[in-house]
Amino acid sequence: MKQYDIIIVGAGAAGMTAAVYTCRKNLKTAIVSIDIGGQTNLTNHIENYPGTGAMPGPELMQKFKEDAVKFGAEFISGKVTKVEKEKKEFLVTINNKETVKTKAIILAFGRVPRKLNIPGEDKFFGRGVSTCATCDGPLYRNKVVAVIGGGNAGTEGALELSEISTQVYLIHRREELKADPITVEKVKKKKNVEIIFNSIATEIKGDKTVKSIKIKNTTTNKEREIEINGVFIEIGAEVQSEIVKHLVKTNERNEILVDEVGVTSCPGIFAAGDVTQVPFKQTVISAGDGAKAALQCYNYLSGNTAEVQDWKKR
Amino acid sequence: MKQYDIIIVGAGAAGMTAAVYTCRKNLKTAIVSIDIGGQTNLTNHIENYPGTGAMPGPELMQKFKEDAVKFGAEFISGKVTKVEKEKKEFLVTINNKETVKTKAIILAFGRVPRKLNIPGEDKFFGRGVSTCATCDGPLYRNKVVAVIGGGNAGTEGALELSEISTQVYLIHRREELKADPITVEKVKKKKNVEIIFNSIATEIKGDKTVKSIKIKNTTTNKEREIEINGVFIEIGAEVQSEIVKHLVKTNERNEILVDEVGVTSCPGIFAAGDVTQVPFKQTVISAGDGAKAALQCYNYLSGNTAEVQDWKKR
Repeated sequence: MKQYDIIIVGAGAAGMTAAVYTCRKNLKTAIVSIDIGGQTNLTNHIENYPGTGAMPGPELMQKFKEDAVKFGAEFISGKVTKVEKEKKEFLVTINNKETVKTKAIILAFGRVPRKLNIPGEDKFFGRGVSTCATCDGPLYRNKVVAVIGGGNAGTEGALELSEISTQVYLIHRREELKADPITVEKVKKKKNVEIIFNSIATEIKGDKTVKSIKIKNTTTNKEREIEINGVFIEIGAEVQSEIVKHLVKTNERNEILVDEVGVTSCPGIFAAGDVTQVPFKQTVISAGDGAKAALQCYNYLSGNTAEVQDWKKR
Repeated sequence: MKQYDIIIVGAGAAGMTAAVYTCRKNLKTAIVSIDIGGQTNLTNHIENYPGTGAMPGPELMQKFKEDAVKFGAEFISGKVTKVEKEKKEFLVTINNKETVKTKAIILAFGRVPRKLNIPGEDKFFGRGVSTCATCDGPLYRNKVVAVIGGGNAGTEGALELSEISTQVYLIHRREELKADPITVEKVKKKKNVEIIFNSIATEIKGDKTVKSIKIKNTTTNKEREIEINGVFIEIGAEVQSEIVKHLVKTNERNEILVDEVGVTSCPGIFAAGDVTQVPFKQTVISAGDGAKAALQCYNYLSGNTAEVQDWKKR
């Protein structure tokens, strides 16, 4: 059975930064992930990760990967399907097949897009329904699309689509957009974006592909149907932490509870990034917290916890 | 009197990342600092800030500055000499002259190098005594130098100097280097680096410039004098938080006490980076925590604290 010092689950900003730090401590590190880049991949134009200038999210994540590889991180493509504690070590099963042994684990597998749970959503997924305007937007050139969600993801998505599609409907359940003011200002200036407030999607209809969406105004209860070619569901993301729930404490949103340096309720398991309860979901924050979890994991493996205990005296 | 939403004190990784985030929230932001780059400037080769590849610290910090400027941050060159609370706002005095008004403050002024407090240290500062191998190393080409300190700064400094100087003495008070294993391995391979363990510097001697250093073995109490041309004091750094001590709580190391998102004991004042009690001092960690402090400062100014209170329920 393969033996590692640290298995990092997830290859987003948190996981790959953690790998840079554990590898620099000469710890044998593998990253297990189904993708490279995590939530940052969903941004076509990341401009608030300082030091790199603006670029597409996937490009930035490729650079993170190069850094992790440079210092010796091993990438294992696959899904972690089981995590078991065995005395002071852990057994990690990948794709229900191979099992590896590790002294410590850093959980950094982020979030997955949330669903509306309305008729047509699953049926037309990939045939007009998408959860990533950045990824699938280019498929809707000169077409009509709807975006569900008025937070940063939805508003930025509408902005992006306004450059590609002829008409964009931005459907938001509240009476005001929740995105950053700079983004709200921009989207309001777009002539081909119609913002529909106080409204929820109730059904997605079509034949082979999406043809229309039914929406309901929650103030007047009036329903209407809009003809569209695609719908982007951008209502945030959720943590799927089932595989480790028997080992670490989570909150009501399934987020893994960590202290200030990524320590979970289970000795030897650390967590960082969107998978934790940290309120702000940002690439640079995930990167910073990935470094903290890695350094604290190193302290744990070398039996040095004084530094942090000292910190907590406040 | 000039009025700002946010004054950020210090232009290192934490302060400049905070500025990127507050400016993107359309908050009128000024950064007051005597330098650009803070502690990151002291690194000639930063390779653990993910996404940028290796580069000199000052170059990376210049990129951070470009990002902050791009989003509208105003840079004010100077030292904050006084901070006063006036009702719910603050008065910030710069260089004992100009006073500006602000709704909130983010403290991110980092640390300054620690001193040995031995004879000759002050007398020869700038004439053979330096606190930055990265900055002043090139002045000692083909000369003999000593480095005091066996942590990351000292060990990396010795490594760097070994490429420039003919002979490097690395003087460390403990019996083992405390730097990252990867760095320790490298320095041990250098034929022109002599590591002197269990020893402290007791005096720096010279005429116009440094000529020798006296060191004492703390196990045997034997003293010896080594002829050198320069000495690099790399024993860490300390926080100088006197100007805000009447407003925010600090610990015995003068570090400003913050919660998980940079909130200090004084409403309206936030802090991030090396100036706080966070145990790991790293560029990427300062950047991440700068973003958290900025987003929480935005929450404070917009009266929204629910997100974080929710987080603390754990």
